[in-house]
Amino acid sequence: MTKTKAEEMAALQQEISISEFFTKNRHLLGFDNPRKALLMAVKEGVDNSLDACQDAEILPEIYVEIKKIKEDRYSLVVEDNGPGIVKEQIPRIFGKLLYGSKFHRLRQSMGQQGIGISAAALYGQLTTGKNFHVISKIGKNRPAYYYELHIDTKLNEPKIVTEKEVPYMKDQGTRLEFEMEAKYQKGKQSADEYLKEIALSNPHAKITFKDPEGTVITFPRAVNTLPKEAKEIKPHPYGIELGMLISMLHSTTAKSLSTFLQQDFSRVSASIAQQICDKAEINMHSRPNTIVRNQAEKLYEAIQQTKIMSPPTNCLVPIGAEALEKGMRKEIDAEFYATVSRPPSVYRGNPFSIEVGIAYGGSIDPEGSVQVIRFANRVPLLYQQGAGAIQKAIIETAWKNYNISQSKGSLPQGPILIIVSMVSVWVPFTSEAKEAIASYDEIIKEMKLALQEAGRKLSTYIRKTVKAREQREKINLFEKYIPEVAEGLSMISSAKKTDIEGYLTKFLKKNIGELIKGLEDNDNKEKE
Amino acid sequence: MTKTKAEEMAALQQEISISEFFTKNRHLLGFDNPRKALLMAVKEGVDNSLDACQDAEILPEIYVEIKKIKEDRYSLVVEDNGPGIVKEQIPRIFGKLLYGSKFHRLRQSMGQQGIGISAAALYGQLTTGKNFHVISKIGKNRPAYYYELHIDTKLNEPKIVTEKEVPYMKDQGTRLEFEMEAKYQKGKQSADEYLKEIALSNPHAKITFKDPEGTVITFPRAVNTLPKEAKEIKPHPYGIELGMLISMLHSTTAKSLSTFLQQDFSRVSASIAQQICDKAEINMHSRPNTIVRNQAEKLYEAIQQTKIMSPPTNCLVPIGAEALEKGMRKEIDAEFYATVSRPPSVYRGNPFSIEVGIAYGGSIDPEGSVQVIRFANRVPLLYQQGAGAIQKAIIETAWKNYNISQSKGSLPQGPILIIVSMVSVWVPFTSEAKEAIASYDEIIKEMKLALQEAGRKLSTYIRKTVKAREQREKINLFEKYIPEVAEGLSMISSAKKTDIEGYLTKFLKKNIGELIKGLEDNDNKEKE
Repeated sequence: MTKTKAEEMAALQQEISISEFFTKNRHLLGFDNPRKALLMAVKEGVDNSLDACQDAEILPEIYVEIKKIKEDRYSLVVEDNGPGIVKEQIPRIFGKLLYGSKFHRLRQSMGQQGIGISAAALYGQLTTGKNFHVISKIGKNRPAYYYELHIDTKLNEPKIVTEKEVPYMKDQGTRLEFEMEAKYQKGKQSADEYLKEIALSNPHAKITFKDPEGTVITFPRAVNTLPKEAKEIKPHPYGIELGMLISMLHSTTAKSLSTFLQQDFSRVSASIAQQICDKAEINMHSRPNTIVRNQAEKLYEAIQQTKIMSPPTNCLVPIGAEALEKGMRKEIDAEFYATVSRPPSVYRGNPFSIEVGIAYGGSIDPEGSVQVIRFANRVPLLYQQGAGAIQKAIIETAWKNYNISQSKGSLPQGPILIIVSMVSVWVPFTSEAKEAIASYDEIIKEMKLALQEAGRKLSTYIRKTVKAREQREKINLFEKYIPEVAEGLSMISSAKKTDIEGYLTKFLKKNIGELIKGLEDNDNKEKE
Repeated sequence: MTKTKAEEMAALQQEISISEFFTKNRHLLGFDNPRKALLMAVKEGVDNSLDACQDAEILPEIYVEIKKIKEDRYSLVVEDNGPGIVKEQIPRIFGKLLYGSKFHRLRQSMGQQGIGISAAALYGQLTTGKNFHVISKIGKNRPAYYYELHIDTKLNEPKIVTEKEVPYMKDQGTRLEFEMEAKYQKGKQSADEYLKEIALSNPHAKITFKDPEGTVITFPRAVNTLPKEAKEIKPHPYGIELGMLISMLHSTTAKSLSTFLQQDFSRVSASIAQQICDKAEINMHSRPNTIVRNQAEKLYEAIQQTKIMSPPTNCLVPIGAEALEKGMRKEIDAEFYATVSRPPSVYRGNPFSIEVGIAYGGSIDPEGSVQVIRFANRVPLLYQQGAGAIQKAIIETAWKNYNISQSKGSLPQGPILIIVSMVSVWVPFTSEAKEAIASYDEIIKEMKLALQEAGRKLSTYIRKTVKAREQREKINLFEKYIPEVAEGLSMISSAKKTDIEGYLTKFLKKNIGELIKGLEDNDNKEKE
């Protein structure tokens, strides 16, 4: 028999390792270009250090250094006073994508995917061929270990090149260093901007930064207390999909369905568990792993029909309206400020909370669209502003109601700066690079409510002060022509120039509203 | 010794399977909500069928059916006359993420990641707990096989639930069927819209669609020839990073450096290979796997310094300016049309080509921002318009130069529809859901060149017809007030009303330009 096309093609079908996938798709991780790559590497290192310190309840002291190796080649050092990493885990934490402690826990943290720092290591290796270096020490009387690591991209596994005990002067902490193709440049979307913003949203951290010219910038600690601990929570029954429920039924340690519901979910009491079992017509003492698909579906429906309290929200640590306004007043020169902090809400069973800040006038660029600053779990988002929930929520808010000009489907216009911050036990990002928040309806709704409230506050201010000024300026424009017209008309008539001027001024005052409206309508009609 | 924090945390550190990762991040794959999920599932099924037919040089006949199972639960059938899939490969093609034939080949195709259809299967399983069903037959005298598959998300491996030979009346092809939580709704961003647009960009395909009400829509074949075959190419030396070069040196079958360069890359002749080796000061007969990192870096630099011809572009199959304009005239009611087809260019060693279409006036919505239609390798992109290269290129084009109004940082405004299409051997998408194209500088540059050319064509049209009409309308507005002013003034003077009207009309004509400019300046100043 001759080979069919399908048989020819079968030879080409093969597995793709996650490292190979991200090597080819490194922009998905944010490593699009050398300048952004440097920012991402700094970000992944610093976010990890902050999370580790938070876990261990340590006030963070983080040292970041960017050294120039040659044109387009830099080395990055990130060192912290965190709890360190046990010897056995070091290779996989830094040399394997999709590995870590945060993915399987529902808790507010900066990292959540187990990709970030190993992706930075992968990028360094891809662009320089060089290995990744780590030293970590987990306590005063413990040895410090040094590792030189290489990622085997075909297998997505770390290869240990060197492994040894080294002297390390600090009691505990982690220091990493690696080279990469990069471009160092200050300004917007730079490592500098990132460090400045992260210091703003983490005033309990001390961050020292040595740039390639050797200049040392210190962001001192502004408060000496750790943020409230972010509690880990169990999934809420409303946020679980049928397929997930089935797989949880198979992997639970609970011996009965009732125990399973109470132990593996949040907000399920014994009586709620019973209600659910009754509605599903399943014995509450059944062993979870004997529940078949049809029963699981009934269970799933019963959950949806049972009134269950919203998930606990003490797992959230928002910035706070007051702290946000303080920060804005410190950093942004404007005429008017307002902040809004929404009560916690829930999407797919995950608690989250939205805060909005708005600033108007002053030295905010009046040209074109409003400026937007975005935070997710206190991490500044510097890229992909056009994508995701925040942009969508701003565009879908009817800013015209608040006396702010806006074209359909666009950001509003004017000297306005908008800050939107989301905190959650699981922020749904639109990409692995975590640059924008996915557009879940519940999230957009909360954002819009916060934006509307901020908009109303701004509107009151604008109505009182700005509109009056605008009206005045429009009248002035027409008035400018009155003397010339009056002069001309007085020459072809017997009337005095001053009388004509008086008439025209009165006419203008009477009709200015209609005239301006006519002009505006006309402008709108032109677009049709 | 007491346990350190690091030791406590070590217990939590673990591997995350790619299936678990995408289960929690299913919006990354486009499965954000039930309506979009249905569209994505249809898209993945149809794209795969079109690619398979193209591979096997078969004119595609595709059958799509969406059946309503109950509220928010639908079943999808996609059946094609493609080459089929060999028995052994079926489970992994549909039941394992990151598996396929397209990822490792540089060739223009709709799919490229080895994720799409298995992601749809994973979503179906996650939301319904039900299995995925496939029948495939690879030739006339071959048996057809039926598989019922379940994805083990912890391992990212297919579990075969049922496997058997079945009767199948067609000579060859693949039929898949699975249930999912979904919402069926016609209109924008629907499965219907997707099928309509894909039929437009693939006029050689016959697609039959049966919707949940049982209505059958047929998109007949418009041409009876297959598109030109998209050739597979080797990577271009300029597009290879140092780390990739090192790993290619280790895995090549070539016995000498010179052969390696000629055999594993495109556009490297024997003499170019020699030039590269000479510049790098490495013997061209060296065995590739003996090249150490430092030498590889020299080799890499030598490649950058050697003039190498651009990659071949016969691997690209663009839509074509003429076909694009025909399509636009058929589908869009406008006053004016223009299309631009750019010559192929290269980003990171990958050939690509940009085409732009622009339509103006007619029944295009004149309110707000322009409308944008996007294609990547002939696949319509219906989501994430705000993200990625196309939006960025449109925003960064100075539309005011073409008499089109635009605020800084926003889409231009007006009754305009813009189509941007990119084809490439590797489209860099911003997410696994393949909804937007990543913003590589080279890609944006080409898009802007195409948009500028289209803009110039439109500008010529607008200058001639539209601006004259606008000016006229503005004059009319002021003229409306002349009789009333003249009436009033003639009463307080001896001049005749007609004389005053004459004077005012003359004055208006003389000053209208300045007056309108004054008003516009004033509008702009208000924004400051």
